[in-house]
Amino acid sequence: MRIALGLEYDGSGFCGWQTQPSRCAVQDAVDSALSQIAAHAIESQCAGRTDAGVHAFGQVVHFDTHSQRPLTAWVRGVNTLLPRAVVVKWAHEVPEAFHARYSARGRAYIYLLVNRSERPGLHHAHVGWHHHNLDLGCMREAAANLLGTHDFSAFRAAECQARSPVKELRRLDIQRYGEIVVFDFAADAFLHHMVRNIIGCLVKVGNGSRPPEWVKQVLEGRERERAAPTFAANGLYLTAVEYDESWGLPRYSRGSSAQLLARFGPSASFLS
Amino acid sequence: MRIALGLEYDGSGFCGWQTQPSRCAVQDAVDSALSQIAAHAIESQCAGRTDAGVHAFGQVVHFDTHSQRPLTAWVRGVNTLLPRAVVVKWAHEVPEAFHARYSARGRAYIYLLVNRSERPGLHHAHVGWHHHNLDLGCMREAAANLLGTHDFSAFRAAECQARSPVKELRRLDIQRYGEIVVFDFAADAFLHHMVRNIIGCLVKVGNGSRPPEWVKQVLEGRERERAAPTFAANGLYLTAVEYDESWGLPRYSRGSSAQLLARFGPSASFLS
Repeated sequence: MRIALGLEYDGSGFCGWQTQPSRCAVQDAVDSALSQIAAHAIESQCAGRTDAGVHAFGQVVHFDTHSQRPLTAWVRGVNTLLPRAVVVKWAHEVPEAFHARYSARGRAYIYLLVNRSERPGLHHAHVGWHHHNLDLGCMREAAANLLGTHDFSAFRAAECQARSPVKELRRLDIQRYGEIVVFDFAADAFLHHMVRNIIGCLVKVGNGSRPPEWVKQVLEGRERERAAPTFAANGLYLTAVEYDESWGLPRYSRGSSAQLLARFGPSASFLS
Repeated sequence: MRIALGLEYDGSGFCGWQTQPSRCAVQDAVDSALSQIAAHAIESQCAGRTDAGVHAFGQVVHFDTHSQRPLTAWVRGVNTLLPRAVVVKWAHEVPEAFHARYSARGRAYIYLLVNRSERPGLHHAHVGWHHHNLDLGCMREAAANLLGTHDFSAFRAAECQARSPVKELRRLDIQRYGEIVVFDFAADAFLHHMVRNIIGCLVKVGNGSRPPEWVKQVLEGRERERAAPTFAANGLYLTAVEYDESWGLPRYSRGSSAQLLARFGPSASFLS
């Protein structure tokens, strides 16, 4: 049978999602715990292969097993075997036709950026940082050019394995809450480093070193060399993966990127 | 001359604020960096001695030096010598009469508690956790009994060094944002473990194992044995220290506990 899991993890102590010979990956920890519960070797497939240092609030994986276990064994049993930084939030049996990556219809990411003169101390592994004051109006103007279906080659890492550079960017909202700037992304799928490369470009616009229309030129140029350097992994969170409702996955795996911020989320009135 | 500093730190890798022979304390890192910039030994005094694992968004310290340095040296110079988890946010010259602890007129703490069935993975060192659903109405009813000036001996650790157990609790607000519950405390001063002991009792009320009026009985009993166990340090943040405006410290060091949450703070509309 095939089981889907909802995962949350702190990526700061791992070399990324994907399994490595040195066993430093989140997948290594997850597959090891699943294999112990199943009593046979398990290799999980994820919806989004997060890089080293990137966090996940709503990662989804699937795996196959012939071991009969109650669903709670795939949650609480596995959680007792996982390191503190990784947790299974839910488990759900799915048809063999389901695939965590290929069945996904959308992904959402959030990038958290501390915007103040001094670097972050608290949460330093969980936020990016830029020291010059960022103009949100300019960044939003630039971001509007990226919405919709485009060839995102300009924001694609050389090692990207996606079949096509054409993606549909469905949301790129930018909000400031005190000293933190929140970038809220949704797309059908993202190219390797796409969010962090876009952040790098938007920061150059926000601090005034490039005009908003420069981002449009970078997009249309379709050359990685024209874009800004890849921004730090620290502030990036895979917040949600969207599937067709017919798969019957918990609502928890869908919804907006606000799932992450709900953990820390004061209302506007709380901030006043 | 006497200098006051505003500090932010992640307490998860430290054995608390106060200097230890093994040099594992936040103060050891801070004093070492200050001493290098000053070129003589410095021992700082803090406003609130946080325990192992407790974080600070708005700690205030002072120290004396005969070395003439521009104020930026006490911020950026010191920051280059501090570990990633600690940062100086501001420096300000103060009169000799100023003392970070004795001049403080109030302290504010926030406690962040993840309230869901599965333990936190992301931010596991930065939040507490309780798995039974918490009733905020009951917890608020219980908390109301603690507001005002009381003998808080029931919530005081045996090793507490405060001269008096009588403190004025000025604020104890409880809000839920999705799966996180935020406890927002303000008082003239807090006894050792006072916030974490109160959290322990409020959780017992919130999960239904004690009625709201039990907290009043615990307070009036003034015996530590009657209260709940001390709650985990992970979720506790020293968010602000309040001083008389005449000292001229940056506004950053005052204000409400919302300073911390502003870093992660979506508006209510963002969450919908």
